[in-house]
Amino acid sequence: MNGAESLLRTAAGAGVEVCFANPGTTEMPLVAAFDAVPEVRAVLGIFEGVCTGAADGYGRLTGRPALTLLHLGPGFANGIANLHNARRARTPVVNLIGDQASWHLDHDAPLTSDIASLARPVSRWVHQSQSARDLASDLAEAIGRSTAPPGGVSSLILPADFQAEGAAGPVVVEAPASRTAVPDARIADLASRLREARQAMILLGGAALDERSQNAAGRIMAASSAHVLCETFPACWERGSGLPGVSRLPYFPEQAREVLAPCDLVILADAREPVAFFGYAGQASRLAPDQSCHVLAGGHEEVSAALEALADALDAPSPPAISHALPDPASGALDPLAIGVTLARCLPEGAIVVDEAATSGLPFYACSLGSPRHTLLALTGGAIGQGLPCAVGAAIARPDRKVVAFQADGSALYTAQALWTCARESLDVVALLCSNRSYRILQIELARAGIAEPGRQARSLTSLEEPAIDWVSLARGYGVPGERVETAEELAKALPRALAEPGPQLLELVL
Amino acid sequence: MNGAESLLRTAAGAGVEVCFANPGTTEMPLVAAFDAVPEVRAVLGIFEGVCTGAADGYGRLTGRPALTLLHLGPGFANGIANLHNARRARTPVVNLIGDQASWHLDHDAPLTSDIASLARPVSRWVHQSQSARDLASDLAEAIGRSTAPPGGVSSLILPADFQAEGAAGPVVVEAPASRTAVPDARIADLASRLREARQAMILLGGAALDERSQNAAGRIMAASSAHVLCETFPACWERGSGLPGVSRLPYFPEQAREVLAPCDLVILADAREPVAFFGYAGQASRLAPDQSCHVLAGGHEEVSAALEALADALDAPSPPAISHALPDPASGALDPLAIGVTLARCLPEGAIVVDEAATSGLPFYACSLGSPRHTLLALTGGAIGQGLPCAVGAAIARPDRKVVAFQADGSALYTAQALWTCARESLDVVALLCSNRSYRILQIELARAGIAEPGRQARSLTSLEEPAIDWVSLARGYGVPGERVETAEELAKALPRALAEPGPQLLELVL
Repeated sequence: MNGAESLLRTAAGAGVEVCFANPGTTEMPLVAAFDAVPEVRAVLGIFEGVCTGAADGYGRLTGRPALTLLHLGPGFANGIANLHNARRARTPVVNLIGDQASWHLDHDAPLTSDIASLARPVSRWVHQSQSARDLASDLAEAIGRSTAPPGGVSSLILPADFQAEGAAGPVVVEAPASRTAVPDARIADLASRLREARQAMILLGGAALDERSQNAAGRIMAASSAHVLCETFPACWERGSGLPGVSRLPYFPEQAREVLAPCDLVILADAREPVAFFGYAGQASRLAPDQSCHVLAGGHEEVSAALEALADALDAPSPPAISHALPDPASGALDPLAIGVTLARCLPEGAIVVDEAATSGLPFYACSLGSPRHTLLALTGGAIGQGLPCAVGAAIARPDRKVVAFQADGSALYTAQALWTCARESLDVVALLCSNRSYRILQIELARAGIAEPGRQARSLTSLEEPAIDWVSLARGYGVPGERVETAEELAKALPRALAEPGPQLLELVL
Repeated sequence: MNGAESLLRTAAGAGVEVCFANPGTTEMPLVAAFDAVPEVRAVLGIFEGVCTGAADGYGRLTGRPALTLLHLGPGFANGIANLHNARRARTPVVNLIGDQASWHLDHDAPLTSDIASLARPVSRWVHQSQSARDLASDLAEAIGRSTAPPGGVSSLILPADFQAEGAAGPVVVEAPASRTAVPDARIADLASRLREARQAMILLGGAALDERSQNAAGRIMAASSAHVLCETFPACWERGSGLPGVSRLPYFPEQAREVLAPCDLVILADAREPVAFFGYAGQASRLAPDQSCHVLAGGHEEVSAALEALADALDAPSPPAISHALPDPASGALDPLAIGVTLARCLPEGAIVVDEAATSGLPFYACSLGSPRHTLLALTGGAIGQGLPCAVGAAIARPDRKVVAFQADGSALYTAQALWTCARESLDVVALLCSNRSYRILQIELARAGIAEPGRQARSLTSLEEPAIDWVSLARGYGVPGERVETAEELAKALPRALAEPGPQLLELVL
């Protein structure tokens, strides 16, 4: 058994089921080893950002790492943007990065570069293997580092010769450590603060967005002054019918500050202290009032149990039956509200919504509180080009569920190659492509920066007109059937039809 | 004047004409400043790898840097692969990378990351500006570092607040230092070695691939035992009618070693000592015989003058009139030879050929020795996805010349978004898209690694079938007209027609 096979057998033994791969010459032994270890499914992405974004989506839904297989520094670099999102989502991901043969590295051949320097900014752990015999144990450590709560990205650099040379067998990977219990004293302290608070806010993030945590938060809300918010960009959020109606913390800092300003207590449930996404002159970075933030549970702690304990400490009753109405049907030309309404009305039970719809996606959140139960994955790190790849990973993680890639056009153009993997793997992904033919957020940001009337060059850098992307043709190019939709009525017909079809579909929503 | 405008005015004053941009919120002051400094043309790329590859192509043809404008760490990361190629081509490029406001950095907002760690592996010089007043002088230094012979990549990290805050005016950028003359003693030494050599080889690279250098090499060849080769992946190579018929050093190390084995003298004319692209077990990294390599001129030296001095030292006569025949027309189904023959026969005078055709491109080289004069740009760093972006930059650098993007399908899929910029800017680019629906080089590498019959998973990772990309649809999606071509006869008609049209065209060559 060579190093590559010992590594893949170790992965398979640890329950790793999939590798999103875009290999090159320095990964040939690993490519060949997939046929010896069919338990690990190799899924080809035709661009590395597809692979890393898919691993992020897969890991968010399963809590287990997917592998990626990437080619040297430049191939890895193409995957960095979506690893940045995975890092912010604290998704377990294990990158396998092939490198030049160890004895060839010093000759600085054309494709040689400093891979570790590229990997560090997005990785919890970076390691370069030192021999073929180490590959199995290095992979075991990579898995361990990625699955240790709260989860993260491991990057393992694998010289080609070590993949090919003989190794001992696979090693057994220890189960990851459990999250630790939150100490009783902290629960008691926060219960006391909650009782005394004039106005409290519970900010749910990370693992606190599952059903159990939200129901506990709903109980706390019913028994105290507390409101409940979801962090602005949740990694994996259970939503819809029967759950408390939780809104997101607004994106723009002045709006977020307005929501948080009345609060003398902000309880962080696996959420970070909220800070502005960008710094704007004259506005503070921190969004919550000074001294208001208190941690209930961090990423290494059992947040749902802590929320339940906090509810119990407040003698909170069982949550009331919750019922949110669906909005009435929309009509006429498509706009973000009409799209949000129609998507909310058409969502099938158990759908996974990957939201990279940016400015076109905002109304959906309020519209969908009464939709059937669904899971929403957001753009955690702000590195655009996440949606379609993440949908690939979601669909592979959960083939029993429909995936809606709710997608802005500007962002989609970074990684539209994901459509090809949807076609190849016959994934049940419906891409709702919101085509406003602009980087709308940048037009808004120009106005916020006081540039009310941008000149020709500034306009050209924020517009995607001239020419407009023909999304139906683009999708066809990648093997995905598509349809152009211009009104809410058309969408109300086309969306259920697309959701009923097996395999991928794209609807170009012309705004 | 704010920092952004002082920076752009400094660039304009230094003769910088173009910025390939994909900005975001942290670059808004720079975006706005383009309208105050119209001398710098802002060209939008809808993916950062398009911007960096275009800057590479532009810099190779003009010898002057283009700017890129990129958004934070993840946006920069998307441009790394093509910066890796620029680094290997020693192309002058100046990256402007927006960052969080300086006072917001420590709050680790979602898009924050260690940009410098990402930039170092592809940059000669990385710097983070420290105040608005520094932006003009920092840009001047960035230009200086990128244009100092032999040229390279500068990366300047620009916090958003410094772009917006007040600054003094632009600064004057000093002209770059000239290349230095090669000492007479070195010329005399190499002339003497050449006279004594049993079999010599002159390896031309970098700046030694212009007309003047090749003619001088031709004289040396006529007056000595020397043969002449071009490095395997030249940055910018003048070719065609009237020039000595120079071949490339072969790609595979066993073939390169065979060519070099008889040589007791290898003269490096702005070329590095040749090493294998990848390390293969049992094969040495170095390709030339031990002790055979001698440097005539490095990247900071005047290589064409040195070659002429060496020819003079050998009393070499003027070069003979050189005439290479064009091949006869090809017929029947398309294969790499039929494509190479037809392209060689159809190439217009002064064309720029960007070669990322990979295995489909090899026969073109021998076929085109008698083609009209043209310039060829190759994949210097091996980071695929270079061709179409590089063609964008070439077309913007030289609007008076036709650009042929001679392109493999697998590679093109990394950065096909470049087609959109071709459409928006009405660039005279003809993309010859060689569709063999596979990563053919990896299939060859699997076979070289002894895997004669790859299994299902290995096959799936090297095949682009199921589904085949429909390149005509994909091009239409990006606004570029396309046509599918299946025979040499069709290509012989379609290619001149496409070359005669203004603006971009794509021909899908079905192999």
